[in-house]
Amino acid sequence: MAELSPPKAPSFIDLTFEEVAALPTDTVAVLPLGAIEQHGAHLPVSTDYLVATSVAEAAVATVAAAGSASVVLLPGLAYTKSDEHHWAPGTIWLSWETLMNTLIDIGRSLANTPVKRIMFINGHGGNSALGQVACRELHRRFGLMTFFAHPSFPKDQGGVDGVDTENGFGVHGGHSETSMVLHLRPDLVHMDRATRQVPDAMAEYKYIGFGKPVSFGWTSDDFGPGGVIGDPTGATADIGKILVEGAVERCAAAITEASHFTIG
Amino acid sequence: MAELSPPKAPSFIDLTFEEVAALPTDTVAVLPLGAIEQHGAHLPVSTDYLVATSVAEAAVATVAAAGSASVVLLPGLAYTKSDEHHWAPGTIWLSWETLMNTLIDIGRSLANTPVKRIMFINGHGGNSALGQVACRELHRRFGLMTFFAHPSFPKDQGGVDGVDTENGFGVHGGHSETSMVLHLRPDLVHMDRATRQVPDAMAEYKYIGFGKPVSFGWTSDDFGPGGVIGDPTGATADIGKILVEGAVERCAAAITEASHFTIG
Amino acid sequence: MAELSPPKAPSFIDLTFEEVAALPTDTVAVLPLGAIEQHGAHLPVSTDYLVATSVAEAAVATVAAAGSASVVLLPGLAYTKSDEHHWAPGTIWLSWETLMNTLIDIGRSLANTPVKRIMFINGHGGNSALGQVACRELHRRFGLMTFFAHPSFPKDQGGVDGVDTENGFGVHGGHSETSMVLHLRPDLVHMDRATRQVPDAMAEYKYIGFGKPVSFGWTSDDFGPGGVIGDPTGATADIGKILVEGAVERCAAAITEASHFTIG
Amino acid sequence: MAELSPPKAPSFIDLTFEEVAALPTDTVAVLPLGAIEQHGAHLPVSTDYLVATSVAEAAVATVAAAGSASVVLLPGLAYTKSDEHHWAPGTIWLSWETLMNTLIDIGRSLANTPVKRIMFINGHGGNSALGQVACRELHRRFGLMTFFAHPSFPKDQGGVDGVDTENGFGVHGGHSETSMVLHLRPDLVHMDRATRQVPDAMAEYKYIGFGKPVSFGWTSDDFGPGGVIGDPTGATADIGKILVEGAVERCAAAITEASHFTIG
Amino acid sequence: MAELSPPKAPSFIDLTFEEVAALPTDTVAVLPLGAIEQHGAHLPVSTDYLVATSVAEAAVATVAAAGSASVVLLPGLAYTKSDEHHWAPGTIWLSWETLMNTLIDIGRSLANTPVKRIMFINGHGGNSALGQVACRELHRRFGLMTFFAHPSFPKDQGGVDGVDTENGFGVHGGHSETSMVLHLRPDLVHMDRATRQVPDAMAEYKYIGFGKPVSFGWTSDDFGPGGVIGDPTGATADIGKILVEGAVERCAAAITEASHFTIG
Amino acid sequence: MAELSPPKAPSFIDLTFEEVAALPTDTVAVLPLGAIEQHGAHLPVSTDYLVATSVAEAAVATVAAAGSASVVLLPGLAYTKSDEHHWAPGTIWLSWETLMNTLIDIGRSLANTPVKRIMFINGHGGNSALGQVACRELHRRFGLMTFFAHPSFPKDQGGVDGVDTENGFGVHGGHSETSMVLHLRPDLVHMDRATRQVPDAMAEYKYIGFGKPVSFGWTSDDFGPGGVIGDPTGATADIGKILVEGAVERCAAAITEASHFTIG
Repeated sequence: MAELSPPKAPSFIDLTFEEVAALPTDTVAVLPLGAIEQHGAHLPVSTDYLVATSVAEAAVATVAAAGSASVVLLPGLAYTKSDEHHWAPGTIWLSWETLMNTLIDIGRSLANTPVKRIMFINGHGGNSALGQVACRELHRRFGLMTFFAHPSFPKDQGGVDGVDTENGFGVHGGHSETSMVLHLRPDLVHMDRATRQVPDAMAEYKYIGFGKPVSFGWTSDDFGPGGVIGDPTGATADIGKILVEGAVERCAAAITEASHFTIG
Repeated sequence: MAELSPPKAPSFIDLTFEEVAALPTDTVAVLPLGAIEQHGAHLPVSTDYLVATSVAEAAVATVAAAGSASVVLLPGLAYTKSDEHHWAPGTIWLSWETLMNTLIDIGRSLANTPVKRIMFINGHGGNSALGQVACRELHRRFGLMTFFAHPSFPKDQGGVDGVDTENGFGVHGGHSETSMVLHLRPDLVHMDRATRQVPDAMAEYKYIGFGKPVSFGWTSDDFGPGGVIGDPTGATADIGKILVEGAVERCAAAITEASHFTIG
Repeated sequence: MAELSPPKAPSFIDLTFEEVAALPTDTVAVLPLGAIEQHGAHLPVSTDYLVATSVAEAAVATVAAAGSASVVLLPGLAYTKSDEHHWAPGTIWLSWETLMNTLIDIGRSLANTPVKRIMFINGHGGNSALGQVACRELHRRFGLMTFFAHPSFPKDQGGVDGVDTENGFGVHGGHSETSMVLHLRPDLVHMDRATRQVPDAMAEYKYIGFGKPVSFGWTSDDFGPGGVIGDPTGATADIGKILVEGAVERCAAAITEASHFTIG
Repeated sequence: MAELSPPKAPSFIDLTFEEVAALPTDTVAVLPLGAIEQHGAHLPVSTDYLVATSVAEAAVATVAAAGSASVVLLPGLAYTKSDEHHWAPGTIWLSWETLMNTLIDIGRSLANTPVKRIMFINGHGGNSALGQVACRELHRRFGLMTFFAHPSFPKDQGGVDGVDTENGFGVHGGHSETSMVLHLRPDLVHMDRATRQVPDAMAEYKYIGFGKPVSFGWTSDDFGPGGVIGDPTGATADIGKILVEGAVERCAAAITEASHFTIG
Repeated sequence: MAELSPPKAPSFIDLTFEEVAALPTDTVAVLPLGAIEQHGAHLPVSTDYLVATSVAEAAVATVAAAGSASVVLLPGLAYTKSDEHHWAPGTIWLSWETLMNTLIDIGRSLANTPVKRIMFINGHGGNSALGQVACRELHRRFGLMTFFAHPSFPKDQGGVDGVDTENGFGVHGGHSETSMVLHLRPDLVHMDRATRQVPDAMAEYKYIGFGKPVSFGWTSDDFGPGGVIGDPTGATADIGKILVEGAVERCAAAITEASHFTIG
Repeated sequence: MAELSPPKAPSFIDLTFEEVAALPTDTVAVLPLGAIEQHGAHLPVSTDYLVATSVAEAAVATVAAAGSASVVLLPGLAYTKSDEHHWAPGTIWLSWETLMNTLIDIGRSLANTPVKRIMFINGHGGNSALGQVACRELHRRFGLMTFFAHPSFPKDQGGVDGVDTENGFGVHGGHSETSMVLHLRPDLVHMDRATRQVPDAMAEYKYIGFGKPVSFGWTSDDFGPGGVIGDPTGATADIGKILVEGAVERCAAAITEASHFTIG
């Protein structure tokens, strides 16, 4: 992973408190949000944490190397809101209330530094909604500029939506995620245990579903015992490399944009 | 609004408790989520509540008239999470914690009836993220099937994105919302006070923004003192009629789909 | 119900935020507190909500028509603290903590307007105690003048205590409540299912009981499976009309008094 | 105070845990609720705590001596909900949430013993409303029979309402309370500092006020800086003796009734 | 106990609020923390409360008599965090959250007086950890000087560690505690039921254990059904007298020190 | 740091959920507790996190290499309860409530695996008290065996107390901590900025102080603006190596002991 983690990702926590106090006011602090949760029979429970921290660290290093913005990396959160995988041993999840209060406490602390901009780079879809709530709360209460990004971007912005065999359901442990872990930590992937689990019948619904106008509440055991929603069987490290490098590039650009972003 | 509210929208609260206990188990309970919050100088603070309850009531009536599903209407929530408008007199807002606990309490109560399906029809964008969190929580804790819908649908599914003069920023009190209120309650709209307030400069950002890959935390006073984000000046009741009727039609279809929706 | 709801009940939520900001500082905001809870086999679960909102709306209209005070109507709370009816399908109840926080959030919001006086008109006895706690909290924390009223008044002030057959226990779904719903929404009352359920044995206690010096904790299933505490069998719409009109008249007078009430 | 505290008030906390486990199931546990709060210039901040614990202890002793019921005394709560006196040095007050959770924790603990009946004897009016909420909560959650009593009883049941000079406002530090402390602890009363502070103007209100149909939120500094609401100037130990002895007698009778009280 | 409780322990709650407002700013308020919890077959559930309040009262009296510091006694907390004895009838315990909020509320109240120094004298080991947390919280939030003391002191400072037969495990209901109650309230001790329950096997562990570098989570039923951890069989009132008098002497000295203690 | 982190520290999060489900029931999960907080002008804000994670990882690797117990490493918590350093930019701290709920959520999640033993290795003194509370809570609520260890051990068990110039006050950023960071990450230490800040005057107190019988509430700015409590000036990497290796050795032995530890 040397190409992802150049040694120069500047770390917030390597600083003394007086060095923190001297950071420029347009500094962007980047905080990866992972998850420790079941990812099917073939992927480690660290999957989301691994992707989020790898991409965030590399993106911060890229920005720092380019000198395009003042940026620091914060330690990521490994344990987040994985309540949809609560049933599976190995999922370690915070309640919505605990995670929200954690993010508020971090924001309150950051507001006591010159750093007034924070970007979450979130590897776990189950955090996205609460993350939006937190971004507003930190902005309103502490005056922070808050940003919420994902390693995976929409297709029309350079992202990859998965393969045809996923029928649009590559949500968890599927083609993209498996490919990224194959690239980042191939030793942790058990492709021999990878199996397709796709709710094909749900494609028939017109209004309700992933990416459809009406969302629905689900836990991952609704889709079967395997823990996967998608088709990991065709995943490769090469695809993962493309996905990860694209994510790093776009996150780095987003960090740079965030350093001078103004509302209104 | 007679065409929207036929007298036969079956109401949950008109029933006795024994009648509730006899409802079919595939019944969908529909709960409108409004907001009481500033909507600029020209719209009432009831705007979101008005749209959500009007559309929900008409959609429930449509489904009931068609007999396509068992459906009941619940009293809507007027006060919800309008923290982004906290600065404005007339905004009455619940904290994220209070709204979340309210939705949990409602879900816990509904789980004590045969009705195991609930669809929120949400007129206020600021509720969407927390609503997703709630839908999962109610599903996990109480086994409810939960759905989250909006009166406004994406353009490629029949929705309307606003007019060109909004530059993609018709978020609050703009063309669409103003048109809908002109249709529903023209007496409450002050078109002479309607002014365009669009953050045109933000269109330049590539990554961060409404509908862009990176979201950001904001309150509505970030955009200026007017309270609007969009361009209401060209709004008409005719456009509003099209929007509302489309919303009713699609919500009704979504309710019907929800009555037999299965995950996996 | 035309006689109860003249079209001129001024509504807080019909205003724009700038119109709210221009309200007189002696304005009284009226907020009905209902409940959605079992009311026996013969009454709808909406009973308390129906009575509270009907009386509040008419009282506000009366005050406005008379010009005796500046007054606005707020949307009522349908879901409140009905924990004593938790056992019954159809009861939708908030915990004490959720309702308290809801009232605090509303008070905090109102304190950001010129309106510094709020009167709760409460149709559900189970809210009365917590409502007292909230009134003090809102007064202390936000400086609001807070008032807590009921549609039903004590007998010596024009109220009606129920009929002799209730033995003083006309607490829930009995003579008075049933009469009021017969007046307001006769289509929702099933008199053929109305049965007397009165804890006559409790009349023997000297110290403990309703209206006695020592109160006690109860849930409504303590009194039997019927859900009623009282005797609805003799209820009539005529009595209901007297009760409702009296409530409107007295609430209107109380609102006027509240607009100039001073402590000390 | 020997006449109030015979040595035989059986104490819950004098027992070993095995003796607790052997208590009869119709035992009534009595828990005094006091307050530590300003009581004007002439009374100690302990006033409510003193009255509640003195009356409760004597009432328990009376019942035990008579053998009319199985009864045990619990340690009283000194610190309760005195938020209306928050402004005064010497007031030590719990928030509504802290007191409620304290009562819930006590109820949860008691439910692990054979003792299923608890009577609160409450010396502080500011606890009454929350106490009602708690009584219901403990009954619903833990199945306890819960009772809430006051040392002072309504006039038509043997209570004393204060003197004419109080104009009905003998609410705090007035004639009755001062008399009781003169009886119980004359060394703590400074009659030379006792002054009348009565909101006579409030008597004019028809609907809003103490004992009137509409209650209102207040803090004691609304009535002036003295801290008193009432007229303590005519208080005497003789009157206090009558009040205290009457309270003991009635509380003892209520405890006995509570030991066999049945709902329904 | 006359020697422990001279009549001159100045009581905070005996004062009027104006007398509280006139206390010197170096006054130390002393608040005993007890517990109501099982203490084996031979000791009352009041044991910790009895010891804490007896020692605190006598120490306060000693300081006051000596005039070495301004000091006042606050009513103690009987109900605290006894979750490790939750299983036993007679244990009345607050959750960590309730006790913490209680201490915060007391601290917030005290900060409204001239008294800025508070010493907890804690009779229950289960409160020690949370008490540390509270002392910091009250210091940070309210600027109070906070102190946390125990009646029992380490051996090298005059304390007593128990007898050899306890093998270092005289933690609960053992030699020391039983001796102190034999001195303070011999009528409440049942020596005939006193039995040794010592986890001798645990002495073998090198790292984990009471007083060892690694602590562990336990509840008292882990040690057997008797409720005791220690050996009370050799306890005597004479030893108890030495322990109690030593505790009083040292607590008095600590209070005096606290009145002029400065950090840094 | 190669000598501290052999490549074989088995990681919980490298496992799939099915591999977690297959872990032996005597497995010890090790969770490092760090802190991100000011550590004086010469040490990084990561100090406690660095020490805790380094020692924990090496200790887990040692146990695994020896095969003396089944052990897995969990991701550490970087953000914990550093409220005593709240004043300093760079301190990122959770409230007591947030950290407690985080630990509860982790414990609740772990209880859904075969792993029933968890050892916290805590690098931050400010977590110790709350950690004790959490250990009991997780044991009582989830039946987990919980252990709380520190990298630094008492002197009589192989620990080091600091140098004479610290006068017993080597609490924060002093001799020991500085030495350990000099060993682990010399690039992060600025010895030229290291200054002695020792509250020598406090040594005079007999009862109150660090390691004395009466503890007190403090924040680190009480001791001066430097942020240090101790004397880092004589710290060396050699001493740090001894301290860290000793900590690893003892923690490894403690983990082994924890795998078969039994209470009672």
